[in-house]
Amino acid sequence: MTAVLTETDDFVAALRSHARRYHDSHPFHVAMNEGRLSQDQIRGWVANRFYYQENIPRKDAAILANCPDRAVRRQWLRRITDHDGTAEGEGGIEAWLRLGEAVGLTREEVEDGRHVVPGVRFAVDAYVTFARTRPWVEAVASSLTELFAPDLMAQRLTAFERRYTWIDGDGLAYFRARLRQAPRDSEHALAVVTTHCRTAEERAKAVAALSFKCDVLWAMMDAIDRAYGN
Amino acid sequence: MTAVLTETDDFVAALRSHARRYHDSHPFHVAMNEGRLSQDQIRGWVANRFYYQENIPRKDAAILANCPDRAVRRQWLRRITDHDGTAEGEGGIEAWLRLGEAVGLTREEVEDGRHVVPGVRFAVDAYVTFARTRPWVEAVASSLTELFAPDLMAQRLTAFERRYTWIDGDGLAYFRARLRQAPRDSEHALAVVTTHCRTAEERAKAVAALSFKCDVLWAMMDAIDRAYGN
Repeated sequence: MTAVLTETDDFVAALRSHARRYHDSHPFHVAMNEGRLSQDQIRGWVANRFYYQENIPRKDAAILANCPDRAVRRQWLRRITDHDGTAEGEGGIEAWLRLGEAVGLTREEVEDGRHVVPGVRFAVDAYVTFARTRPWVEAVASSLTELFAPDLMAQRLTAFERRYTWIDGDGLAYFRARLRQAPRDSEHALAVVTTHCRTAEERAKAVAALSFKCDVLWAMMDAIDRAYGN
Repeated sequence: MTAVLTETDDFVAALRSHARRYHDSHPFHVAMNEGRLSQDQIRGWVANRFYYQENIPRKDAAILANCPDRAVRRQWLRRITDHDGTAEGEGGIEAWLRLGEAVGLTREEVEDGRHVVPGVRFAVDAYVTFARTRPWVEAVASSLTELFAPDLMAQRLTAFERRYTWIDGDGLAYFRARLRQAPRDSEHALAVVTTHCRTAEERAKAVAALSFKCDVLWAMMDAIDRAYGN
């Protein structure tokens, strides 16, 4: 067997290389995973990140609205169900609210967004706007930060369980669910992107979309870091 | 018991009064339900109406994308599943393609939209754009033509079964499904609209949205009537 790198391999490699721009290497995130954040800093991160969480189903619905492919829509719909749940008290957004309670925030102060700093709001809104206004395949490509998520989630779970023992372990259900969901989602998104992006230009746009998404996550971290110190 | 008309009753009555503007009274539709259409006219209607059908999930996803209420989103999602199905070969769009086959059209000529006339395209696109760009409650209100759909579907089923005996009855599964789905959907949409539209201005906008939707359906009929004669 000889290993021949195809253009698709190069494309996937270019996408995967963005792992180095993923927000897990942001100083605030490094500090979080090393157990160096205070309770107030953890609370600030959880409250701000909720704005991202609650906008995910709307971002995904915007992709659905732009996508003419029924088979892709059928699969993409599961992301919305994962976050919204199929009944009251279920789903990822609810799980994040419980994380909020586990770190000592009320549901109300998380849901009403009082702690959300402008930089986080702008970054999340930019992501939703991207999904609404860009071609749907680019929006799918922007979701590919999920390729890097499982490693981060595993690290984060370990860090939270060992270093932040003041947080009830039941509050970490969101991270555990994502360990299972993110690989399934990123595998589907990668298949969609490699199927639909055939020209150099289309592939460059997909890579740019993923780069943009890395910027979104990084800018959120910057804004949280600035607000809560490190 | 005294019957006291509340403002909500007046509002619901104003919405329901649009039944008289529903497309079932369009001459082409009257002719269809009276069994007076030729095979070519039925085919023209089925092929053109497909453009509406295939855009429904994208319209509904646009509403989801604009809706911040998780409970509403959870319920609204079922509309997308109804049309797209949960697996290949299921759902309302597939059922409409089978109706196309039952009336003598190939799947290909229905799916590629070659028979879709500009007036139908413009009307459907206007509806999708409305859902994308208007406040989500107005977009929900625009769906309330479903209040009038079950009567039409029942009439249409009878007409097709008795008058157009050249159409295989299995092809009518879409209409049968809507007999069950439309009342459930319109009941939910009406509850959303009456809950969220509390001021006179909000209610006027909801009524205007339903009026707009009646225009969409009527304009489609006009365009089909013009193209296929009556």
